Amino acid sequence: MKKHNFSAGPCILPQEVFQKSADAILEFNGSGLSLLEMSHRSKDFVAVMDEARAIVKRLMNLNDDYEVLYLGGGASMQFLMVAYNLLSTNGKAAYTNTGTWAANAIKEAKRFGNVDVVGSSKEENYSFIPKDYSVGSEYDYFHCTSNNTIYGTQMKDFPEVDTLMVCDMSSDIFSRQLDFSKFDLIYAGAQKNMGPAGVTVVVVKKEILGKSGRDIPSILDYEVHIKKESMFNTPPVFPVYATLLTLQHLENNGGIAAAEIKNNAKAKLIYDEIDRNPLFEGFCAKEDRSTMNAGFKLIDESKKETFDAAWKEAGINGLNGHRSLGGYRASMYNALPIESVEVLVNVMKSL
Amino acid sequence: MKKHNFSAGPCILPQEVFQKSADAILEFNGSGLSLLEMSHRSKDFVAVMDEARAIVKRLMNLNDDYEVLYLGGGASMQFLMVAYNLLSTNGKAAYTNTGTWAANAIKEAKRFGNVDVVGSSKEENYSFIPKDYSVGSEYDYFHCTSNNTIYGTQMKDFPEVDTLMVCDMSSDIFSRQLDFSKFDLIYAGAQKNMGPAGVTVVVVKKEILGKSGRDIPSILDYEVHIKKESMFNTPPVFPVYATLLTLQHLENNGGIAAAEIKNNAKAKLIYDEIDRNPLFEGFCAKEDRSTMNAGFKLIDESKKETFDAAWKEAGINGLNGHRSLGGYRASMYNALPIESVEVLVNVMKSL
Repeated sequence: MKKHNFSAGPCILPQEVFQKSADAILEFNGSGLSLLEMSHRSKDFVAVMDEARAIVKRLMNLNDDYEVLYLGGGASMQFLMVAYNLLSTNGKAAYTNTGTWAANAIKEAKRFGNVDVVGSSKEENYSFIPKDYSVGSEYDYFHCTSNNTIYGTQMKDFPEVDTLMVCDMSSDIFSRQLDFSKFDLIYAGAQKNMGPAGVTVVVVKKEILGKSGRDIPSILDYEVHIKKESMFNTPPVFPVYATLLTLQHLENNGGIAAAEIKNNAKAKLIYDEIDRNPLFEGFCAKEDRSTMNAGFKLIDESKKETFDAAWKEAGINGLNGHRSLGGYRASMYNALPIESVEVLVNVMKSL
Repeated sequence: MKKHNFSAGPCILPQEVFQKSADAILEFNGSGLSLLEMSHRSKDFVAVMDEARAIVKRLMNLNDDYEVLYLGGGASMQFLMVAYNLLSTNGKAAYTNTGTWAANAIKEAKRFGNVDVVGSSKEENYSFIPKDYSVGSEYDYFHCTSNNTIYGTQMKDFPEVDTLMVCDMSSDIFSRQLDFSKFDLIYAGAQKNMGPAGVTVVVVKKEILGKSGRDIPSILDYEVHIKKESMFNTPPVFPVYATLLTLQHLENNGGIAAAEIKNNAKAKLIYDEIDRNPLFEGFCAKEDRSTMNAGFKLIDESKKETFDAAWKEAGINGLNGHRSLGGYRASMYNALPIESVEVLVNVMKSL
């Protein structure tokens, strides 16, 4: 039976990516070798890395002021690297606290210096995106999380700030058109809209680097990775390649603009049902609802067993809410077809 | 034509690993889902991670004093993590400098405190393994590199030291039987004998942790990763799975003992030819020759074109020496069949 995969990440990717990446493991580019056994310094793989870096800039419409890096270690490593590279020894940074990952980013930055939380919805269980704050030039940078996977909230607008703009876009990168040139540093773990787990993409404006006054360990230093074109050490070869395939699929299917239209349609479908159906309610402020992760719960818990059986029977996977919130979470990343959302909505209607 | 893959890493893995990991990308465990789109917290993947950790301990014959971690970021990240976790604020560490990677490990540790290089072959272009040194209890730990991929040297014995024993085994882990319980911390990038690029295995004796007196960033803290069973953040799912497959192949084919016999036979074959053939000479001291990486060069450079054409025609791949040393390097990791070495030796004989 066809599966409808609503996993929060790692998550569904285009079927073409599964097929092509499996093929590359058996033999890459007619080389007689598996992608897994090739030197990362071979011509074939250097071409993969070069194109993987270039396509990000094309999709984001960014000029050569920016560099793209593919790094191991996950977005959690970026919580540390951002602070190490950008927070000067006596400086301070401004963060918004909009969810678990934002809170983790704040925690790690605090080891390095002063952090002001300029906006927070923590006391209201992260149910909305704080908006009424301003960030002045006294800060080394401003850090925000564009989409909160667990709580299902998403920044619809980004503030005008008088300092560097840093954004963790792990869970909604490439899902909607943005003026990416407004950001000085963007990072995202691949395992939502970009590819499989095991690699993190960093997009950074070169001119902001080298100013923290810190002695940065090589592996944490963006400038080192830029200089080595993401080959300071052996990169995560397979995750990089599968990410390239995913981004090529995006580019060949209308780019971010086309993805955004589909994502909006999927989100409208499920939120309309959540609002219509008296058995369900959403978790968060309507105006901040994420197009990527729709969180909701049953108003009448006695229906739980019936609902759970029904969506499982319909081939739906990964719908359970995060353990910290309970309920349900429908993650609808770029690769999820609208048909899957229709199947879920039909199950909700039938309850 | 069959390829004979002498790549220094990423390198050849068992054919079974390519087949099974490609299958898992198309569908994992009959779940209807690709391994790449499954939650890392799904039962299926948690079982992969648990077994991946357990099999390392079985293969190394280690008891529960040890924990096994699968981390992103590469062995170069361990240069930093070892120092952060084990080098106390006023303490010092002892390192041997036996090659490029050892030198990098030293460089990163020096950012954190005092480092004494107790043995070095740097002045002799890393052509041997230094042996006449002692390490007393005044050091927080001793760090060595068991095999030097670029220079083709390997520690045949490990010193008795009066402090913690830390070893970077990236390029010869699981290639030979050792008393692994003599080590307090072992780390290795997967991409030689263990699996594809993108994951690093750390084996650590729990009791040595928590004593450096440093405030360690979460993502660099071994204790955090132990507590979260290598799931502090999303792990590199595919590299972990392919590593498990590689280690299962090792276990099912006689374990380290059987691999060692094969590796010794392969090494004997090529070194015998290097010593016999007046056209070639090795790079390093005979007693320190690596069973994993045999470095050699042509004595008569005018034969280069002929030799290069001949080995390429024989289907050999990855034989060029590292750019810092030139010449040739035959990397013969666990998965390389002896037939490939025979093909190379026949080409050498025919010159």
